[in-house]
Amino acid sequence: MNELMLSHVKEAAERIESLVHKTPVFTSESINEISGAEIFFKCENFQKSGSFKMRGAANAILSLSKKEREKGVATHSSGNHAQAVARAAQSVGTNAYIVMPNTAPGVKKRGVLSYGARITMCQPTQKAREETLKEVVAETGAAFIHPYDDYRVIAGQGTSALEFLNEVKDLDVIMAPVGGGGMISGTAIVTNALSPHTKIIACEPEGADDAYRSLQKGKIVPPPENPKTIADGLLTSLGDKTFAIIQQYVDEILTVSDEEIIEAMRLTWERMKIIIEPSCAVPLAALLKHKERFEGKRIGIIITGGNVDLKKLPFT
Amino acid sequence: MNELMLSHVKEAAERIESLVHKTPVFTSESINEISGAEIFFKCENFQKSGSFKMRGAANAILSLSKKEREKGVATHSSGNHAQAVARAAQSVGTNAYIVMPNTAPGVKKRGVLSYGARITMCQPTQKAREETLKEVVAETGAAFIHPYDDYRVIAGQGTSALEFLNEVKDLDVIMAPVGGGGMISGTAIVTNALSPHTKIIACEPEGADDAYRSLQKGKIVPPPENPKTIADGLLTSLGDKTFAIIQQYVDEILTVSDEEIIEAMRLTWERMKIIIEPSCAVPLAALLKHKERFEGKRIGIIITGGNVDLKKLPFT
Repeated sequence: MNELMLSHVKEAAERIESLVHKTPVFTSESINEISGAEIFFKCENFQKSGSFKMRGAANAILSLSKKEREKGVATHSSGNHAQAVARAAQSVGTNAYIVMPNTAPGVKKRGVLSYGARITMCQPTQKAREETLKEVVAETGAAFIHPYDDYRVIAGQGTSALEFLNEVKDLDVIMAPVGGGGMISGTAIVTNALSPHTKIIACEPEGADDAYRSLQKGKIVPPPENPKTIADGLLTSLGDKTFAIIQQYVDEILTVSDEEIIEAMRLTWERMKIIIEPSCAVPLAALLKHKERFEGKRIGIIITGGNVDLKKLPFT
Repeated sequence: MNELMLSHVKEAAERIESLVHKTPVFTSESINEISGAEIFFKCENFQKSGSFKMRGAANAILSLSKKEREKGVATHSSGNHAQAVARAAQSVGTNAYIVMPNTAPGVKKRGVLSYGARITMCQPTQKAREETLKEVVAETGAAFIHPYDDYRVIAGQGTSALEFLNEVKDLDVIMAPVGGGGMISGTAIVTNALSPHTKIIACEPEGADDAYRSLQKGKIVPPPENPKTIADGLLTSLGDKTFAIIQQYVDEILTVSDEEIIEAMRLTWERMKIIIEPSCAVPLAALLKHKERFEGKRIGIIITGGNVDLKKLPFT
């Protein structure tokens, strides 16, 4: 049982319309040939701020009361959610306060600063992040925008699948990566309502397979302390809300190795000429690993983001 | 005076329709902000075979008589034209014979082979290429498809500008790189006919600025013997046909340094999340170099291709 429904996603889509791009759906003859499946890629790497996170951040911020919004918004993140909150806040003319670990790469800090947000640095531990955020919120009165365990955020992320399923009919399977679970939860709510025969598959790196293990055990298993995977967007733990939705709607979680991820990423770059993050290559890697299962089927894959450090690419 | 007209390009567009993609036009808010111009990017990097060369190759091959076509087609090229001829030939069910210098990178050879073409290797000199091609043609009876100095090829390349100008109206300027001149010639024919007020600017790397010098001198100046530029798609000399069209219609040639090319390439990868070759970054580099001239204007840029070796990227 959960409280989020298709109608919330539809409301979110209307709410955020002016702040986000309707992203294109790409296909690739050569990847279809290699995989034996007919694949449709929903390209959130072309989304504002470079990832789908803009959708959830925009919906959460636009759902605040005028009074709340005036005090600004805050979050802790070293990745795409930070840039999305900063950009969405800038778009509606309020302040964003971002807590980032002092180990965050320069390119991500520059991204956040370029959207006019204020960065507070902290030690790179979950505890330090949360405490620093608490201080920032206490000082500023800003509203905390959780990266995924928030129905407004999940509904926002679901707007991508809403566009996708309205454009591409009769998918046999829809696939998305799972980290904290915001994207796959929103996708699951929409897919279950609009296209109940479509299988919903979440995909995860073997080096941080806590969602897979959580689903097996029936309770949230935290990720390993020092997760080892190139898919740096998928390291976080599930939340209570996302886990409940995943338990209810997600048919299966497939895991892949880093080698498989890099190979799928290379294939996407070389054949489709689009830049995707390692985390986004996880679903295609899972599809190629289990080719025989997907042969002849119509598969939808959500490409979640394209923010990579061009100085640190895995191609050798 | 030249014999190629808009009507030939329109005929080419109909002829090749089933063999090519209608490529999308992308825009980028952040690159608009950086440049101060409103830029439209026609994305031939998403074209079949990974570059616009598919258009010219397809038109040339489909213009052959049935009897000619049966004997196959041949060309010498180490780059995108080779892949395009191979793929177009495969699409119409005929053989392609490609002469490649033995220095051609493995990734390009694999591309050509993947389309079922036969490769004949030769020494990496213009003379060896031409002589080897002559032998191949003598043995097989295949029709030679010149990479640019052929009206069927130029008309094919022009179909990109035809799509572009039909989709985006009132461009103040249209820009494309110039190597052998096939793309800029086709673009110029179409732009002059459909949108005569649009300025036509060709862009070239400083390290191989033979088109610039040719236009200055009023006669074809060959490129330097060992051209030094990262824009490896723009090293060839103009041909008689392309030079005549360029003299008649191109308003100006702008040149840029390799540093400027790499910076524009990085900007395109980072902000637009699309993979483009160094050669394709030349027009954006020229625009950014002369920002003040293009401020507030509507600029069309043809992104010519996306075939890069991911192991040899210039980002440091």
